[in-house]
Amino acid sequence: MSSLRFYYDLMSQPSRALFIIFRLSGMQYEDCVVQLRNGEHLTDEFKHNINRFQRVPCINDNGYKLAESVAILRYLSAKGKIPEHLYPKYFVDQGRVDEFLEWQHNTIRVTCALYFRTIWLDPLLTGRTPTEAKIETLRIHMERNLDIIEEVWLAKSEFLTGSSLTVADIFAACEIEQTRMADYDVRIKYPKIRAWLKRVRQSCNPHYDTAHHFVYKISGTGPQAKL
Amino acid sequence: MSSLRFYYDLMSQPSRALFIIFRLSGMQYEDCVVQLRNGEHLTDEFKHNINRFQRVPCINDNGYKLAESVAILRYLSAKGKIPEHLYPKYFVDQGRVDEFLEWQHNTIRVTCALYFRTIWLDPLLTGRTPTEAKIETLRIHMERNLDIIEEVWLAKSEFLTGSSLTVADIFAACEIEQTRMADYDVRIKYPKIRAWLKRVRQSCNPHYDTAHHFVYKISGTGPQAKL
Repeated sequence: MSSLRFYYDLMSQPSRALFIIFRLSGMQYEDCVVQLRNGEHLTDEFKHNINRFQRVPCINDNGYKLAESVAILRYLSAKGKIPEHLYPKYFVDQGRVDEFLEWQHNTIRVTCALYFRTIWLDPLLTGRTPTEAKIETLRIHMERNLDIIEEVWLAKSEFLTGSSLTVADIFAACEIEQTRMADYDVRIKYPKIRAWLKRVRQSCNPHYDTAHHFVYKISGTGPQAKL
Repeated sequence: MSSLRFYYDLMSQPSRALFIIFRLSGMQYEDCVVQLRNGEHLTDEFKHNINRFQRVPCINDNGYKLAESVAILRYLSAKGKIPEHLYPKYFVDQGRVDEFLEWQHNTIRVTCALYFRTIWLDPLLTGRTPTEAKIETLRIHMERNLDIIEEVWLAKSEFLTGSSLTVADIFAACEIEQTRMADYDVRIKYPKIRAWLKRVRQSCNPHYDTAHHFVYKISGTGPQAKL
């Protein structure tokens, strides 16, 4: 059994990103699935022994507990667990990937997640459906950032930060795929994102499809359906 | 003249954080003030030559353009420009600081900024004032995260990630100070945050007060007033 424990739920976007990265890296770890829908992260035991912020993903590396997906990625990269082509070691190239990893938090992450939550998750949990005006506002906010992915990040390259896949692409794809469940098809309006998502999936499979099994199932769209 | 150009506006929280960090580090750089209120970041010239995302802070290091405050910090640390006590080089200690830097984006950064914007900035720009109910909702969201700073991050230590000041404290303090301008006094409800802010200011002065000159002036509260 590995001394690295990985706590995650494939319903969580950054959990999926780390899952794909760990699998692509051939890393040894102990699978610790946390069922968010059963509130397994909300117990006192989870708070005290696993993650004081009561979220996933998080790790316990031989007693060293760490939360936050990007921090986890960097820590494991420094330990030599992530191949250099996925997360560069040379600081100039790493800066380009870091720029995306920091940019995404308050742009696509927050707006795609809010769109998904308001349209899919909240109605399920509370029975309240959002108004058309609310959906429209959330869509506009999300598309402002999808526009930047299409027009700026993918302006000149096949992948977000250059000519090959890095962790930046994996984090971004997992956020964008989440909106499928809220019946949003990013591929209609964004041809570059459509082609890029296809490349990301191909570069990451079979792990990409494994990670997105629930997303495909819930959205009723197969992996191939709209690619 | 240094080959490192630093583009910033002290009205922007992460600009202030980098300004303080650069000054504390004794780094040589060329001051490039961008007047956000005059829309200087919105020109085509800025987009094409300075930052394609049209935001501050950003740098140009001898032709290498980089945006996103945390990515900039990490790049300059790798170049040996940031002292190790502010941003640890040992990956285990660095992980603790990274955990905070990643955590803050969608917690205190987004909620403090939204509180400030809705209550102070938007009325100034649009003439529309938010309803009491709206203010209350924003305050609750913000305080959920301030609670975590008070009860989790500051539970056992004098600073956010241990017994001494790091960049984590500087980023956090700059976000929290911003809410003064919206007439929010974090010190009333949060005694640990109050004492910690005092320690951060003392550890960073005179640069902390220089960076917060406009914040003090606009909020009508001197640096000492509520500490």
